[in-house]
Amino acid sequence: METIRTTEIGQHVGQRVQLRGWVHNLRLLGGVNFLVLRDGWGTAQAVTQDEAALAPLTQAGLGQESVIALEGLVVAEPQAPGGVELHDLTVTVVTPVSEPPPIPINKKQIKAALPTLLDHAVVANRHPARRAVFRLAAGVMAGFRATLNARGFTEIQTPKIVASATESGSNVFKIDYFGRPAYLAQSPQFYKQIMVGVFERVFEVGPVFRAEPHDTTRHVNEYVSLDVEFGFIQNHFTVMATARDVIAGIIDTLQGSYAAELELLSARLPAVPAAIPHIHFAEAQELILQRHGVDVRGEPDLSPQDERWLGAWAQEEHGSDFLFVTGYPMSKRPFYTHPDTSRPGYSNSFDLLFRGVELITGGQRLHLYGDYLDALARAGYPVEPFETYLEAFRYGMPPHGGFAIGMERLLMQLLDLPNLRLATLFPRDLNRVAP
Amino acid sequence: METIRTTEIGQHVGQRVQLRGWVHNLRLLGGVNFLVLRDGWGTAQAVTQDEAALAPLTQAGLGQESVIALEGLVVAEPQAPGGVELHDLTVTVVTPVSEPPPIPINKKQIKAALPTLLDHAVVANRHPARRAVFRLAAGVMAGFRATLNARGFTEIQTPKIVASATESGSNVFKIDYFGRPAYLAQSPQFYKQIMVGVFERVFEVGPVFRAEPHDTTRHVNEYVSLDVEFGFIQNHFTVMATARDVIAGIIDTLQGSYAAELELLSARLPAVPAAIPHIHFAEAQELILQRHGVDVRGEPDLSPQDERWLGAWAQEEHGSDFLFVTGYPMSKRPFYTHPDTSRPGYSNSFDLLFRGVELITGGQRLHLYGDYLDALARAGYPVEPFETYLEAFRYGMPPHGGFAIGMERLLMQLLDLPNLRLATLFPRDLNRVAP
Repeated sequence: METIRTTEIGQHVGQRVQLRGWVHNLRLLGGVNFLVLRDGWGTAQAVTQDEAALAPLTQAGLGQESVIALEGLVVAEPQAPGGVELHDLTVTVVTPVSEPPPIPINKKQIKAALPTLLDHAVVANRHPARRAVFRLAAGVMAGFRATLNARGFTEIQTPKIVASATESGSNVFKIDYFGRPAYLAQSPQFYKQIMVGVFERVFEVGPVFRAEPHDTTRHVNEYVSLDVEFGFIQNHFTVMATARDVIAGIIDTLQGSYAAELELLSARLPAVPAAIPHIHFAEAQELILQRHGVDVRGEPDLSPQDERWLGAWAQEEHGSDFLFVTGYPMSKRPFYTHPDTSRPGYSNSFDLLFRGVELITGGQRLHLYGDYLDALARAGYPVEPFETYLEAFRYGMPPHGGFAIGMERLLMQLLDLPNLRLATLFPRDLNRVAP
Repeated sequence: METIRTTEIGQHVGQRVQLRGWVHNLRLLGGVNFLVLRDGWGTAQAVTQDEAALAPLTQAGLGQESVIALEGLVVAEPQAPGGVELHDLTVTVVTPVSEPPPIPINKKQIKAALPTLLDHAVVANRHPARRAVFRLAAGVMAGFRATLNARGFTEIQTPKIVASATESGSNVFKIDYFGRPAYLAQSPQFYKQIMVGVFERVFEVGPVFRAEPHDTTRHVNEYVSLDVEFGFIQNHFTVMATARDVIAGIIDTLQGSYAAELELLSARLPAVPAAIPHIHFAEAQELILQRHGVDVRGEPDLSPQDERWLGAWAQEEHGSDFLFVTGYPMSKRPFYTHPDTSRPGYSNSFDLLFRGVELITGGQRLHLYGDYLDALARAGYPVEPFETYLEAFRYGMPPHGGFAIGMERLLMQLLDLPNLRLATLFPRDLNRVAP
């Protein structure tokens, strides 16, 4: 008998089928006994009044998370989850488990404190709701790639061990590289720019490493960055248009191919406007003064409160969950940021806010060799550690720009999770490098 | 005027078009002048007898790698590369470059010693033949994912910073993790097995790090690993069947969607037999004795010479570029390898040889908790560093297995490149962490 998936049993009503998976739940209620089997895709309910059918489990004292093969007749049953259940069961034990899991994973919600849940992530991630989050992570990557592949972008994989801690000069992890120091890349920024010189349009999905000693609900020290960079742009507005399409493409993919996971999590994804509204940094500060009486003009950055106010304004004024803030002051942006030549002190950069929280950072970069030499000098950086990076500009680069999305941050925000760690498969933070 | 790609000009004969890109070559021959423009996808030839049309470049002393916009009339010309060229040119300089590149990149071959080429990889990777290799890398990833997605696999991204150097106990890079030691993952092995408990079928595309002080043409210290792991297998033959399909899927993708790159590199990809021939390790050693008079029986592993002999045999006997060698001795395989219970001392593992060189390593893993405790004790490892890994087995894992493909190694072998570094975008080795 061919094995089918739990998600396929609805197509087999009236047939005898075989499933394989884990004992997700086993309830012996005397008269009627329920066995819920979980495979890699979903769960299926089996019901029997014949306790002997469950003897391979019950007689050996086996229970939850035992791996079994389960044969049964598929019967339509409106009251069962999914409208079908299995009767006339034959259970074969594949891997016996008698010890209950360290945290319960067969209830609708996991009742465990976050540290306990993370300590036992190996098992906790089997919980259908936890698993749905990480299936959606695969959907985010798929939607990201599909959107960019359709626009002629080429996927790259750039090195994570780098020679110098150059991008921001700090907050990088140091490695012993055959007796010499090297560092973990805090972003593929330099490499993705270099690769614009090769492919014009590139993207990367890969780990980045931040040695910031944060201890917040919104930071971890290793995460998956979705990076985009491309050439022949007009300015940062060209980049913002692509960022909009990428977010829309990701959301379309999730809604189209991951409906079951979204439903399980009761997630309602936002609509992405055809053109996301935008506001200049300076006007945003004026708006905050007018609407809230708080004068943040002259501040070089927006506070979380400022962002929330702007998010509320975008919702009221434009009916949009999304808002681009453009033109952040040069003083708060990295040295490779392209200035707004028409507005001294401001840059051709942007943040995309989602419901008042930053989701994407991006912008136009410098592209002229001389501008890089000037920018490094202004920032007080030596040229030598940047020499190979500068080679890209010395030998011809077009106007270009890009952006980065933290994959787990995006998931956290789309699913309204209270902690970034809940969107991370095996999070690394100040206190945690395992499991 | 809309900008088109160089690869699209054949569809615009008789029309005036605009291209944007780099001056790949500029030859002023007095009567006739040739300008080859390179964009992110290909090159296009422009021809003019009117030197004034090139004045924006020539008068400013600009040349190769200058970024330009180029307008022209598309004319069919059988002698031109691709059968079309541009006439009646208008050149606009976007980014001027007057200095010739550090290594020539406009000849059919790059004439530079390997260290020089790697020192200037930032520019060298712009060379059409170098670029084609890395476009094929994107194709390898796409083919890998498409094959596995179609089979119900879920993509995962597992952490690269890990708590202990446990898989082989050595050859890992050490990190300073907030004052405590941590390590760079040498493979996602433990995590991909753990995730079989969640999704049944998983794959990952990501960097792995090997601190082996090798200095060969076939080793680098960071590479992209294509990892697969899945549950409910019969034994290693189930895994081999999937490995075969993955290689076939990658090659189909390259042939279907990357024909231009393959042609540029004069690459002829191998046919993958519907069933790849296989031979047991012990029989392979007997075969070598019979055919070559060399007695390697009792050796715990195959030498490169043994592998070449076996590759030649597979070609002669089966007409196949591919050969599975199965059942490697347990003594040379990692502790989580599943033994062949019918043949003491041998394992349910395999290597896939391609033209006599190892391409893939894989096999069935242990899946019972007790077997792991025994295997660790036998190997003399303490249990404590493996505790979270063991949690997966303690709470029920099905028979499972998987394999890993080194992406750059695969490219090197498919394209018959003499050095793995030539298949690596920015290689890291004993002596190199930049560019």
